[in-house]
Amino acid sequence: MFEAKLTSASIMKKIIDSIKELVTDAPFDCSEQAMCLQAMDSSHVALVSLKMEVGLFDTYRCDRTINLGLSLASMAKALKCANNEDTCEIKYDDNDGDTVTFTFCDTKRDRTQDVTVKMMDIDVEHLGIPDQDYAVVLEMPVTEFKKTCSDLFMFSETINITATKGAVVFTSKGDSGSSVITYTPSKDVDSSEHVTLDVKEPVNVNFSTKYLLQFTKASALSDRVKIALTNDTPIVIEYGLNDNGHLRFYLAPKIDDEENNMD
Amino acid sequence: MFEAKLTSASIMKKIIDSIKELVTDAPFDCSEQAMCLQAMDSSHVALVSLKMEVGLFDTYRCDRTINLGLSLASMAKALKCANNEDTCEIKYDDNDGDTVTFTFCDTKRDRTQDVTVKMMDIDVEHLGIPDQDYAVVLEMPVTEFKKTCSDLFMFSETINITATKGAVVFTSKGDSGSSVITYTPSKDVDSSEHVTLDVKEPVNVNFSTKYLLQFTKASALSDRVKIALTNDTPIVIEYGLNDNGHLRFYLAPKIDDEENNMD
Amino acid sequence: MFEAKLTSASIMKKIIDSIKELVTDAPFDCSEQAMCLQAMDSSHVALVSLKMEVGLFDTYRCDRTINLGLSLASMAKALKCANNEDTCEIKYDDNDGDTVTFTFCDTKRDRTQDVTVKMMDIDVEHLGIPDQDYAVVLEMPVTEFKKTCSDLFMFSETINITATKGAVVFTSKGDSGSSVITYTPSKDVDSSEHVTLDVKEPVNVNFSTKYLLQFTKASALSDRVKIALTNDTPIVIEYGLNDNGHLRFYLAPKIDDEENNMD
Repeated sequence: MFEAKLTSASIMKKIIDSIKELVTDAPFDCSEQAMCLQAMDSSHVALVSLKMEVGLFDTYRCDRTINLGLSLASMAKALKCANNEDTCEIKYDDNDGDTVTFTFCDTKRDRTQDVTVKMMDIDVEHLGIPDQDYAVVLEMPVTEFKKTCSDLFMFSETINITATKGAVVFTSKGDSGSSVITYTPSKDVDSSEHVTLDVKEPVNVNFSTKYLLQFTKASALSDRVKIALTNDTPIVIEYGLNDNGHLRFYLAPKIDDEENNMD
Repeated sequence: MFEAKLTSASIMKKIIDSIKELVTDAPFDCSEQAMCLQAMDSSHVALVSLKMEVGLFDTYRCDRTINLGLSLASMAKALKCANNEDTCEIKYDDNDGDTVTFTFCDTKRDRTQDVTVKMMDIDVEHLGIPDQDYAVVLEMPVTEFKKTCSDLFMFSETINITATKGAVVFTSKGDSGSSVITYTPSKDVDSSEHVTLDVKEPVNVNFSTKYLLQFTKASALSDRVKIALTNDTPIVIEYGLNDNGHLRFYLAPKIDDEENNMD
Repeated sequence: MFEAKLTSASIMKKIIDSIKELVTDAPFDCSEQAMCLQAMDSSHVALVSLKMEVGLFDTYRCDRTINLGLSLASMAKALKCANNEDTCEIKYDDNDGDTVTFTFCDTKRDRTQDVTVKMMDIDVEHLGIPDQDYAVVLEMPVTEFKKTCSDLFMFSETINITATKGAVVFTSKGDSGSSVITYTPSKDVDSSEHVTLDVKEPVNVNFSTKYLLQFTKASALSDRVKIALTNDTPIVIEYGLNDNGHLRFYLAPKIDDEENNMD
């Protein structure tokens, strides 16, 4: 028996909406500690890593470690039925066989909605993500990162990120023009819009603009995004889940000449 | 001579927008008491019945009973010209021949707009709708009914409605999942969002989800919707017009095995 | 060296968005007094005339008269990167060769964005627009003019405008119906929504509805629009730029029988 209840369906909605275009079928690993998901996108370039810790849930019961394989399209359809203020209960009963039930309750309106979703067999490939120290850690408002990616997407498919102690610079060069966006670390760190930049070593890396832009669909989850960078290493883009987990995206760098110009 | 003036064009706009996708050409029956319309949809499954009583109008003059045949697309075009706060006068002069004129006035802006629409010959088929007592009468906020129909439309083309004294249940079953929505009658009937349920006999009927969803386009007309049900009988969905008439939709039930399972 | 800075990028955005569908490539004439643009639309029926006077800019430096040829699509792309509250600096350095740089600054967020746009060779055809007195000058809220054009566009491709001392009348006649919009000069000229009408001679002219509607894309630039009319003469539609210039559209009248009916 797995039974977990969220005070608000909206967080689950936002998570699924963030990743459903990257990942089609998702194996949710449910344990006593957390509900987790790790999946590569279909082109095996990006990795999604979700961790919803017990603390995120209102009530949580997981008798034994199980894996719930669900189509994200079906989950999105189920969650579309929930109002944002509805509670959301996720339930799997070993006796019920191959379905997961989402129950949305709106006590104010005397309404209960059960949506039953068929489970599916999904090959689980566990990817060991090495813990590592990153050369640069950048934190900024999600709106800024989203705007940067969508602005630069107009100019080129490749985004170059260089970070030094003084500034982080996002560059994109196309045939009809180019764009350079520079952020300097904020003096006023009390502002909710401040940018922080922690540089151990300078970094100069290129990424696919399309993927970075795709990841910013998670902007609804959090006010701020954390970006970790090291030369020749996948970028990590992390959106926090109310201090009880995270949604992380990993993306391998683009290899080309520019990358080797520095450091 | 027929001449009727509404304080606000918005109610006429909302009515036409509610039905223009169901009915293309509409014969408006104008009498001393009311401006009425009865029309089947093109597939002859649903019936639209509109009654705009004299009290709905600011001024109303109808010298003799006449039938004004109008294309709803042309009427919608005319009404698109009206601001919601504009007054709306509908005028037919026997001497003018085959046109109806809509006049929109915005005295605040010193603007008058006349839109002239050509009339058309429409075969009028009067359908006697028998007055009858219904086994179940349900009343709920229009937003709730709309959400129920659009949620269930994601799962199946058929919606099952069962009502007992304790609850009304809307169910929809598809290949990839299913959804069950349960409303219990509200305790707090003072709330504008309350649900009332009057059950003489339990009911279990199936309807086309697509049509029910289509009818909810009338949700702009009223805060609440009244739904009347009897087994093996068309459902009636009624939106009130400020206590001076109504827009009603009738839809025959879908006949299949499930329907006969219950009394 | 040309260097001009606007306090807010939004005015430049609005100007380019107003004209980018009429004109593809624009030769900007920069002089000590103003940044100007004159261009015919591709079908050579309409003329766009833009004048941005020095007073519109925060800082302005133009060492010698130059012509900057820019693709409006590229400019629109550059300006899409600017937030409305960003400052906008336009810079051309003779030493840099063939590019213009737009710099957007958002000091609140410690962000600077440089967008570089390639210049292009554009044939400049200077059109002498004769200064002339018009028979009718009409001033109205931009929202009213926009609504008039879009309403009448539903009925016909031709709009007829007749103006007499008492009223200005816009008429459009189609197969399925017709619409007549009448404005009388406002008594309350203090109202921001008033209509003023100055008639030396009555006017009766026809124009392409599509073009008039196209011009109303400039409605974001100003609260009011000034329209000047003379029989057999292009209409002038002027949107002011904070008392420091204007965006004007000229459109030749449609020649047909109706035009000659009146003095």
